[in-house]
Amino acid sequence: MGQTKVSNANDHAANGLNGHGKDDYSSVLTRTRPQETYNLTSVEPGSFYGKLRSLYADKVLKTQLEQLKKQGSYDAFRLKWHPAYDIRRMYGGKTRTDGIPPSLFWESDVGKWVEGACYFLSSPDAKACAHAAEFESAIQELVDMIEKAQQPDGYLNIYFTVVDKEGRFKNLRDLHEMYNAGHLLEAALAHQRYTGSRQFIDVMIKNINCFIKHFGPNKDQLHGYPGHPELELAVLRLYSFTKDPKHLAFAKYLLEARGVSTEDQGGEPYFVWEAKQRKDNILPPTIDTIYDVWYHQAHKPIHDQEAILGHSVRAFYLMTAAADLGGQFLDDAKRLWSDAVDNKMYATAGFGTEPRVEGFSPVPHHLPQSTGEGGCYAETCASIAVMMTSERILSHELDGKVRDILELCLLNNVLGGGSLQGNQFSYANKQASWGDEDQIRHDWFEVCCCPPNASRQLGMLGGYAWSAEVEEATKTIKLDVYILLSATRNISLPNGQSATVQMRSDMPWKGKSAWDFKAPEGWKWDVRLPKPDYAENLKVSENAQEVNPGFLHLSLSNNAEVTQQFDMPVRLLAPHISTGQDTLIVSRGPIVYTAEAFDNSQLEGQYEHFEGLGISSTTTFEEDEEVIHGIPVVLLQANQPTFALNELSNNQAYRAVTSDKPARTWKKLDQKLKFVPWFARDNRGGKGHLRTAFLRADEAA
Amino acid sequence: MGQTKVSNANDHAANGLNGHGKDDYSSVLTRTRPQETYNLTSVEPGSFYGKLRSLYADKVLKTQLEQLKKQGSYDAFRLKWHPAYDIRRMYGGKTRTDGIPPSLFWESDVGKWVEGACYFLSSPDAKACAHAAEFESAIQELVDMIEKAQQPDGYLNIYFTVVDKEGRFKNLRDLHEMYNAGHLLEAALAHQRYTGSRQFIDVMIKNINCFIKHFGPNKDQLHGYPGHPELELAVLRLYSFTKDPKHLAFAKYLLEARGVSTEDQGGEPYFVWEAKQRKDNILPPTIDTIYDVWYHQAHKPIHDQEAILGHSVRAFYLMTAAADLGGQFLDDAKRLWSDAVDNKMYATAGFGTEPRVEGFSPVPHHLPQSTGEGGCYAETCASIAVMMTSERILSHELDGKVRDILELCLLNNVLGGGSLQGNQFSYANKQASWGDEDQIRHDWFEVCCCPPNASRQLGMLGGYAWSAEVEEATKTIKLDVYILLSATRNISLPNGQSATVQMRSDMPWKGKSAWDFKAPEGWKWDVRLPKPDYAENLKVSENAQEVNPGFLHLSLSNNAEVTQQFDMPVRLLAPHISTGQDTLIVSRGPIVYTAEAFDNSQLEGQYEHFEGLGISSTTTFEEDEEVIHGIPVVLLQANQPTFALNELSNNQAYRAVTSDKPARTWKKLDQKLKFVPWFARDNRGGKGHLRTAFLRADEAA
Repeated sequence: MGQTKVSNANDHAANGLNGHGKDDYSSVLTRTRPQETYNLTSVEPGSFYGKLRSLYADKVLKTQLEQLKKQGSYDAFRLKWHPAYDIRRMYGGKTRTDGIPPSLFWESDVGKWVEGACYFLSSPDAKACAHAAEFESAIQELVDMIEKAQQPDGYLNIYFTVVDKEGRFKNLRDLHEMYNAGHLLEAALAHQRYTGSRQFIDVMIKNINCFIKHFGPNKDQLHGYPGHPELELAVLRLYSFTKDPKHLAFAKYLLEARGVSTEDQGGEPYFVWEAKQRKDNILPPTIDTIYDVWYHQAHKPIHDQEAILGHSVRAFYLMTAAADLGGQFLDDAKRLWSDAVDNKMYATAGFGTEPRVEGFSPVPHHLPQSTGEGGCYAETCASIAVMMTSERILSHELDGKVRDILELCLLNNVLGGGSLQGNQFSYANKQASWGDEDQIRHDWFEVCCCPPNASRQLGMLGGYAWSAEVEEATKTIKLDVYILLSATRNISLPNGQSATVQMRSDMPWKGKSAWDFKAPEGWKWDVRLPKPDYAENLKVSENAQEVNPGFLHLSLSNNAEVTQQFDMPVRLLAPHISTGQDTLIVSRGPIVYTAEAFDNSQLEGQYEHFEGLGISSTTTFEEDEEVIHGIPVVLLQANQPTFALNELSNNQAYRAVTSDKPARTWKKLDQKLKFVPWFARDNRGGKGHLRTAFLRADEAA
Repeated sequence: MGQTKVSNANDHAANGLNGHGKDDYSSVLTRTRPQETYNLTSVEPGSFYGKLRSLYADKVLKTQLEQLKKQGSYDAFRLKWHPAYDIRRMYGGKTRTDGIPPSLFWESDVGKWVEGACYFLSSPDAKACAHAAEFESAIQELVDMIEKAQQPDGYLNIYFTVVDKEGRFKNLRDLHEMYNAGHLLEAALAHQRYTGSRQFIDVMIKNINCFIKHFGPNKDQLHGYPGHPELELAVLRLYSFTKDPKHLAFAKYLLEARGVSTEDQGGEPYFVWEAKQRKDNILPPTIDTIYDVWYHQAHKPIHDQEAILGHSVRAFYLMTAAADLGGQFLDDAKRLWSDAVDNKMYATAGFGTEPRVEGFSPVPHHLPQSTGEGGCYAETCASIAVMMTSERILSHELDGKVRDILELCLLNNVLGGGSLQGNQFSYANKQASWGDEDQIRHDWFEVCCCPPNASRQLGMLGGYAWSAEVEEATKTIKLDVYILLSATRNISLPNGQSATVQMRSDMPWKGKSAWDFKAPEGWKWDVRLPKPDYAENLKVSENAQEVNPGFLHLSLSNNAEVTQQFDMPVRLLAPHISTGQDTLIVSRGPIVYTAEAFDNSQLEGQYEHFEGLGISSTTTFEEDEEVIHGIPVVLLQANQPTFALNELSNNQAYRAVTSDKPARTWKKLDQKLKFVPWFARDNRGGKGHLRTAFLRADEAA
């Protein structure tokens, strides 16, 4: 892994950290950044997405608040000792043995909960949730505690205030100081938006200024950046709020410094230099040597990174900031996003093959479905991060493929990270169960990043749905639709006027959507609607052109109605042949399906984890509408029989193929496979055994 | 991973280390242990194996001696400082970064070379090699140095004498003191047999007695055992030489103590306790926590281990000792041997899927063929170790499957570990190349265990060929044939009489073998000949019964001639379907074939690494005899065309399968694939690209 070495000893700034100077990154302030408009959209309560938002606004946030209190993270800001703080439990060995205490992540878990709660509370459709008063009071109590926990110099971190006072800023690689600050900052921004109060955001601005004092390109500063990216994207959001150029400069610095080797930090990436300074040989189990900074996407400057590598959540938090900043960093984000979705993505929009590094295989198309095949991780947070990056990319330029992936993430690996009862969550999302491993969700996790991350994702759903921009000179309202759902959006126009757009959609189950546009006389609409890759026979009621790939452009007068219709037949997806998997995956529109033991107990009882079972590529399916815990879903039942490989029970490691003993022979089974949307798996009981990709049994059919 | 805790505080011996007491393990002295008879067999010089032995006796040993001198390991016994000794190069980072200096293995590399050289020099057919005088003088110089390097208390280790004097016996898990001693001991035994001198063996007996003083079951002893097994099997060989019960007791202790948790070592396996004593947090990159002692097969007592786990060479050195000791340990060896060969073996008799741990996947049938599929290691030493274990098992009871595997190892992954010019070696043996990785052998390795290991394996080939036992009471000579080759063996009979058996075989290329038995009047032969699993239409000239599975029993008079004939048609092997690989592997008898770019440059030029290429299971082959660097081989050329998957070039990660776009379509190519025996690959130039398993393209044929 090559290192860029820049020598410029007479410069005031440290070597190589002055940036490229070509981009002014002004688009952070000038372009519409849809996520930031989350509170302007009201999702229709009775709709598919509305019901999900009610679940999260109420049951899920309540469950998570209780768990945070039970775990100790809620009270941690009181800065009192807690046994979980003991980083040296390595040799005690009761729980984690990697030297990373779970309390190191507590600010982020609490921060994401506050952020999510504020999103729901500030959303027109969800603010009246049953526990609103309880959430408001918890938020206030937390903000008060956080304020008191801040040190006079602006520093704010529980672990390094209570436990390891000498350790501050000494191990950015592993110990999450910047990651936590980023999540608290996002929470503070959401809190300010919701309450109008500056209490929390002022604390966090003081905290960010403390980072800015210690970290930067100058020789008297450390040239560090987060081991787990997050601060970068949060500071860019802060900049769009404060418009303070030093916040932009800091975010820019964090991205530009990453992976750069400078003379005054030993000619090596910061994390290598920093580890040498510590003279601390503890390596977390994720890395083999201190040079393994590819795990942290710090092996090269971002501009030089050709492949997406390492921890998948870290990678896409970083890409989110890169895409938001724009310029050459947007190109980087698009390049690495493409590597991920083209070469390293599970069909359910899961990312990450290797459990050990919670991240990508360096090998393209190495996508084992289960531990039994050699891995599979697909962390919920990683797909959330890909949604975030995708939204940033779309805010620069519309691209139907990016939109399709955003929706695929949301409706599969993200939504599937929580139960439809709102009380259980998944972290890793394997495509198939194996051996003693089930795929049953859990109440909580010691490091609990995913559950509150899903909450804030659903909380700001309005910010992912569409992008509206007003061009006063031409009296044009531009509307780009990202997700087909039922919602209303008010758009402010100059001189106290306003426009509204109402979207009604039967997605994700039926390809029928309608829009009602209303604007004052003299205004016109410039609309781009999704033309999803999975849509067949797509028709729009008005004249429309595909100007951007995967989007249909419509020019409309001030008041207009538009309808769109398309078919979503069941599609059998074949993974790329370089996966080595000759399988078929059942999908319908943006929804990927899985077969679980609950619906197929007889088959799965005989063929545990559905191992050795196949379907033919001519299989057709019956659709069956069902409501699972209040959420409507479409189940699918194969019309053709299931096939089973006879050779599964053969115990010969290598068997000579002869004319009377062919390589593979299939048995036709009476039972037909039933499939449930991937996100809705494990919601009706059962033992958590499932399989998503089935062998292609065309030679049997 | 459960731990057996035995509490017995009043006992003189430490808890749980008293052994089971059921077995007296007397068979180590009473039964024939064929390996120890290596010097009684003369391999026919002009035969296939004879030519290989000439290559190793001459060119290979010479190359290795030069490399050992160049590397510094030869001179290391002078106990002078060498830069390679610096274990703290972790932060210097020029070469190894795992904290394990390569010099830690130097005794073993030199030891194996001495051992191999002594085997050849003491063998009737190979002693007259061109460099015999040079080897003899090097052996003497080394033995003199080793003798001088020994400390007054018997301790003998370069690293802990020159570099880290405080470190002695503090890290058995990683630092190879016992492993090195075992290899030096095996060398000393070979040296004693060859020279008749006790110089070296007396040094090593003193060294073993030093270990026995410090390690054992008593409370004033450390309860350690080797992190890398080897000492166990060497001490058992020593016992068969000294017949000193304390050597048997020590070997027995080393096996019984492994993985046992005792109260006086913290109720945990020794390596965990030992790491805590060191208060040293450096973990080698092979393990994630100090509890990962499954890597060392020390997570449970051997009797409780159900699956073969961890480092594959360590695992089978341990199993070799277990099988040799016998009793319940023989059952353990058979159980774990079966798990390895049934569930975790490559077709070429390679063992080890995971490069990171140089070892087994915990998942049965997880056998990716290349880095591109997610791994593959198949270290040469591991297959040597499986040969060693197999020979020990056969010495207890004949089993054709064990014999077949022994031969499969020898003729594929072991023999393939060296070039046929005798100047290059391989360590890992991947089944397919990938990306920038070629499969070209190397001149030498920083840790160079495999090359001298192959030398000693070929050196004691006579000890793997057959087992002879004389029953005086019934005047019966029992002969069990393990490997079909051309060789002569003299068998001493009582009263100065002797018998001879001459075996002539056209194996491994033709299934034709003949035996000439000669014994004095009144004696008879009790012979068991292999009935290999791959043999078809097997015929023996005399009356024969399959008493032991895979062996034919013949009762013969004192002078007899027997011929055996069988067919070895090309067989296409299908791996177990749980591998997820629908592929075919070309084999003929015990020889597994591979396709390399040298023979198939046009095809491989178009389809790099032969990716996406398939053959049908009805393919027939032309045989083509060739001589590669003096060694006769049979090449195979497919009679049917090669097929290529059209979808390889498709860049869609997931593609909807429709009637006009089926999942897989094949193109028939003009070029036909040519195959070379796996062991003979990379001997004629070319870029080292190869593939062993090809997609099954039956739907194209």
